Amino acid sequence: MATVEAVPNFSEGRNEELIKEISDAAGAVEGVKILDVQSDKDHNRMVLTLAGEVEPVMKGVMEASRVAVAKIDLRHHRGEHKRMGAVDVAPFIPVSGIKKKELKSRVEKFAKEFAETFNIPTYLYYESAKQDNRVKLPDLREGEFEGFPKKIKLPEWKPDFGPDVVHETAGCTAIGIRPFLIAFNVNLRTNNVEIAKEIAKAVRGSSGGFESVQGMGFMLEDRGLAQVSMNILDYKKNPIYRVVETIKFEAARYGIEIDGCEIVGAAPMEAFLQCAEFYLRMTDKLDEHMIEKKIWG
Amino acid sequence: MATVEAVPNFSEGRNEELIKEISDAAGAVEGVKILDVQSDKDHNRMVLTLAGEVEPVMKGVMEASRVAVAKIDLRHHRGEHKRMGAVDVAPFIPVSGIKKKELKSRVEKFAKEFAETFNIPTYLYYESAKQDNRVKLPDLREGEFEGFPKKIKLPEWKPDFGPDVVHETAGCTAIGIRPFLIAFNVNLRTNNVEIAKEIAKAVRGSSGGFESVQGMGFMLEDRGLAQVSMNILDYKKNPIYRVVETIKFEAARYGIEIDGCEIVGAAPMEAFLQCAEFYLRMTDKLDEHMIEKKIWG
Repeated sequence: MATVEAVPNFSEGRNEELIKEISDAAGAVEGVKILDVQSDKDHNRMVLTLAGEVEPVMKGVMEASRVAVAKIDLRHHRGEHKRMGAVDVAPFIPVSGIKKKELKSRVEKFAKEFAETFNIPTYLYYESAKQDNRVKLPDLREGEFEGFPKKIKLPEWKPDFGPDVVHETAGCTAIGIRPFLIAFNVNLRTNNVEIAKEIAKAVRGSSGGFESVQGMGFMLEDRGLAQVSMNILDYKKNPIYRVVETIKFEAARYGIEIDGCEIVGAAPMEAFLQCAEFYLRMTDKLDEHMIEKKIWG
Repeated sequence: MATVEAVPNFSEGRNEELIKEISDAAGAVEGVKILDVQSDKDHNRMVLTLAGEVEPVMKGVMEASRVAVAKIDLRHHRGEHKRMGAVDVAPFIPVSGIKKKELKSRVEKFAKEFAETFNIPTYLYYESAKQDNRVKLPDLREGEFEGFPKKIKLPEWKPDFGPDVVHETAGCTAIGIRPFLIAFNVNLRTNNVEIAKEIAKAVRGSSGGFESVQGMGFMLEDRGLAQVSMNILDYKKNPIYRVVETIKFEAARYGIEIDGCEIVGAAPMEAFLQCAEFYLRMTDKLDEHMIEKKIWG
């Protein structure tokens, strides 16, 4: 089954009724599974996580957006989190059974449809970006809802779809593909948090490590273990095993072993199979030998 | 999804039309996926592999058996393979999402229903066996169709279900649970087949190795590599990684490395996850962190 996840962010984190209405609109679409609904009063923002096959998920995002566009008025919206639209950003994440290229063109079609349906200036961002200045959301969102009427007139900020005029109440929207983010922790058999911090520095992209790894060192006080806590932003570029093996040899320099590893939340099966394939030196993809796949497709 | 496989063996390997009729009867059941149909003229036997959720698979085996019982007459059956019934043996294999205990009681219910529907003496074998003499199929099948009228009168061979009288044309049937068999090969960076043979001896149960491993040493002539070719009869008792790590250290004694590993056919996802969990020292089951499972159940 071609499975995708979508994580649309809506600019409403206070009105419980509206939050529910938005998430229910997505959940009512047949084939959509709502995995998570998070909202934050200070941020005044909600994050909806839905998944399923491609078409239902697209429809789910569209229906949730229909409610958000109709009922959120950014002219009166205040919150700590930056935002440029009622539907601020709608990332789509390939999970399994779908090629990135295929999802990419489907997401572009969706963005066009979204822009036309709601008359909202729509930008393709992250891996869907057609221009460099639209890859990173903070660059794109800069100026926010209030600054966009001016920003949108600049040639480099002409939207990919929809009008060159900011929607009066719903602003602008960013839509694009991003990879599945894996939250992954490695616990070390030491109570010296400095070692975890040093190792975090070694593996994370921001200090010269793996580009798609973010990492910090923490102390797990109750367990007496230091932890390297990470986000792997793109497990296809940076498989879990590579991070683990690197931490293993970095820790060995201090005579320290890995106590254990943990996934926070969820990750795609492929990320786990990558590890089995690596350690077992498999000659071909395990995916192709999985009985469940032969049965269920 | 609770997924099982069934691999019923029918005593017909020559009549193409009947082979098709038997497999079509199973395939016609909604929710049944026919994974394989193998027949052998010398053995005069067919092996049907079907899979899906529990109830459709049970129904598929029942419907295929209905055809086999009606059309196979063992009084005129000759072949190299031993057999005691038209439906000689029907193993059920848990794949995922179902506890062995749960499937066990369902299979017992199926065996009873089978015996009553067709008036066939039915034995619970392998992991479903209620008596020690019924665990191994060769013990149970000894005497074959022709010898069973006498054997069945012995108190220790009273069938678990059905009459104490052999079915005139369809004989007796063995039904039970068995684990998923994984065919797994490890290629060694040597052209010395003797090393592969020595290592096969070290890992296989029959010569003192792991109880549920069968193994032989072969030469892959075209690749110039020696291969340890194995069946892992029960990956829950004997995970793939344990076999690989053992072969790794045994090979190191000869200064030889593993070139690569391969799965022949298919294996359950769980067998791969076991490996990732082991090598990554996961603190909990990866299964519980798999996004696909959260979406599709």
